[in-house]
Amino acid sequence: MDVSEIGKKITQLTGVRAIMADIKESLGAGKSFINLSAGNPLVIPEIGELWKSSLSKIMETPDFDSIIGRYGDSQGYQPFVGVVKDYFRQRYQWDISERNILITPGSQAGIFYGTNMFCDQSQPLLLPLNPDYTGYKSSWVSLEDPLTVVPNTSIVSPHTFKYQVDVSRIRQILTQKKVGAMAFSRPSNPTGNVLEDDVFHEFASMAKEYDFPIFVDSAYSEPFPGITDVSVDMSLYPNMVYSFSLSKCGLPGERMGVLVGDEAVIDKLECFQSNATIHSSRLGQAIAADVLTEYDFESMCQRYLKDLYFKKRQCVEDVLTHVLGDLDWYLHVHQGGLFSWLWVPQLKRTDLELYAEAKEKGVLVVPGSMFFHNAESISNKELLNCFRISLTATDEDIRSGVQIFAETIKDHLS
Amino acid sequence: MDVSEIGKKITQLTGVRAIMADIKESLGAGKSFINLSAGNPLVIPEIGELWKSSLSKIMETPDFDSIIGRYGDSQGYQPFVGVVKDYFRQRYQWDISERNILITPGSQAGIFYGTNMFCDQSQPLLLPLNPDYTGYKSSWVSLEDPLTVVPNTSIVSPHTFKYQVDVSRIRQILTQKKVGAMAFSRPSNPTGNVLEDDVFHEFASMAKEYDFPIFVDSAYSEPFPGITDVSVDMSLYPNMVYSFSLSKCGLPGERMGVLVGDEAVIDKLECFQSNATIHSSRLGQAIAADVLTEYDFESMCQRYLKDLYFKKRQCVEDVLTHVLGDLDWYLHVHQGGLFSWLWVPQLKRTDLELYAEAKEKGVLVVPGSMFFHNAESISNKELLNCFRISLTATDEDIRSGVQIFAETIKDHLS
Repeated sequence: MDVSEIGKKITQLTGVRAIMADIKESLGAGKSFINLSAGNPLVIPEIGELWKSSLSKIMETPDFDSIIGRYGDSQGYQPFVGVVKDYFRQRYQWDISERNILITPGSQAGIFYGTNMFCDQSQPLLLPLNPDYTGYKSSWVSLEDPLTVVPNTSIVSPHTFKYQVDVSRIRQILTQKKVGAMAFSRPSNPTGNVLEDDVFHEFASMAKEYDFPIFVDSAYSEPFPGITDVSVDMSLYPNMVYSFSLSKCGLPGERMGVLVGDEAVIDKLECFQSNATIHSSRLGQAIAADVLTEYDFESMCQRYLKDLYFKKRQCVEDVLTHVLGDLDWYLHVHQGGLFSWLWVPQLKRTDLELYAEAKEKGVLVVPGSMFFHNAESISNKELLNCFRISLTATDEDIRSGVQIFAETIKDHLS
Repeated sequence: MDVSEIGKKITQLTGVRAIMADIKESLGAGKSFINLSAGNPLVIPEIGELWKSSLSKIMETPDFDSIIGRYGDSQGYQPFVGVVKDYFRQRYQWDISERNILITPGSQAGIFYGTNMFCDQSQPLLLPLNPDYTGYKSSWVSLEDPLTVVPNTSIVSPHTFKYQVDVSRIRQILTQKKVGAMAFSRPSNPTGNVLEDDVFHEFASMAKEYDFPIFVDSAYSEPFPGITDVSVDMSLYPNMVYSFSLSKCGLPGERMGVLVGDEAVIDKLECFQSNATIHSSRLGQAIAADVLTEYDFESMCQRYLKDLYFKKRQCVEDVLTHVLGDLDWYLHVHQGGLFSWLWVPQLKRTDLELYAEAKEKGVLVVPGSMFFHNAESISNKELLNCFRISLTATDEDIRSGVQIFAETIKDHLS
């Protein structure tokens, strides 16, 4: 059975998907691993209790039967859409109505609608952050490469660095090529970077000037889960759609993405959703409506999520410092998210070779070159010597796993 | 903001989507209507009680926190996948493993993956039943028309008719054109027809011979909801994927499609799901696993669903007979599903004109030409004089609504 052109793209088992398949196979093969590769957030009992309590309450309401027993609007479960509207109006003074909101079955689905609604061969996807989440490229069903730029790096302390976007190069691309849409994560998966406000403004003005939508993947951002320690501009600019998620604050199983933004864009994405899956599951939306209304959810996230991940990040740094000392290694400044991002420019092996060697020793991390868009076109290969270390493991696993991994690096560094 | 080629297709507001938008606008405008256009199934308290009871039970298990609090496999929530496997192995002696199963966020999503994974301009979608559910064509993101054939009709009693597929014409298409995939509903939305076993076998052998997947949309079929009164061959042939749904038996809000079939096809659709939405919501799957294990769910569906809809169908026929008597009108034989399908070949107005006139009188039905694939290419326009009457309204609404609608028809028939 031959697949379509779209099928060819979708079934490509390359990059991070090939690695994830390899990791899944390794984990299933019986040997035990310290797994620092996972993106599955920790289950926090105190947060889980909120969802459970709201679910119990909803089951006792007369609405329950119709929540599960009726089809709904493509836009979302209307009481939840109303809660989201009020929430963001009050929190950020956004001038929005229900028509600025779309509830998707996870924020990945929102990105899928967005890339494919607006991008094709004649107006490709622009991914200004590099490295960044790989799902933007993989969700786009075109076989075309996205437009992207090589990042600049700056060393900010002896063992800390930060990526900077080459904004002038992006301006140059825009004068040469029609762009379908722009997408990036803020805070970033995998690096923990948070795009600076001035560049964010610049992107917003580019989107307006060249008339394309701009998708801001806010899966780790304020207001929830708020796993970030920098205060950023949260203005809603024209053509902009924020994609919020409940997956990092206790509800990944229910698949809920909350898109808020430009009405013309939202309207088209709703149309896509109506064709692709009719609407998102309603029970999770009903629970979320109650949680956002009845609890101080942001404070709960701050208390139980943020500190937890920032402490684990410190643990990674402590172990690396202990093992690698004054060798040539750099962690990306951690401004948010669930991952720690390590760069070892002088490494005498590729990231894939190191991944394989660490796996032999029972430790799983994700090789960093997977997260670079169009990695093959980056001439300075030192840039690719990176690793994503997940902060979702136990403290003990992080300590022992990073120890083993750092020793592996040390063997190929000095 | 310019949309992509895919976006152009997705945002086309034509056919049934234009009508549904018009209906939604009418319903929201304040005037009260007898709504015989809806596809929203009735809420049956006895069935709803099953889901609720299973949900309560699951909330008390230690698994609950991880069901909502963890990401899962793209394939589905593993305990539910296991239950589905055992269920169909036992019920139909299908020789299947977990790898023959994919849980999607509604069966529409499964169709979306299927059409786009396998069909493009060079190998289009083949829709052998005509009229049929419009979602196959609308879910396919290509601007290409699907391949289809004009149906044959036979009068089976004074006011009853049945569609027959022109199988020889389909054979002819297959010799002329590479086909990407075939899809149809069985029982059919909108007609209530059930494709005959011999044609079903013929399609299965075509799929094998020409090596394309065949999607059997079984949303009203046995084993659940089982809203059908003909016994059919339920064999699982090579290249075939059945798409079952829980949306017609009480769980539409949770969006759950159950695809069971050819492993090579399922594997590719799982790949699509992984890119498009990661996985389906898990709570609904956990509930369904419990319901299918703990209750005689099929008997419950038979008892509370099947008779209900068949009685309403009889009510439609009684009113039409009363008003239209010996005039020239035909209901399609009702072998299953939630709709009654009326054909009035000699009507002196188009179905769209009748729709508008009935709407003026406060009754909403769906004009039937919307459900014909490539209707503009059908030269015998009498074939298009059809209407879909929903059986999901109250008995009273059906009686009074069909009465008014039949009188409207009568004005343009004699």
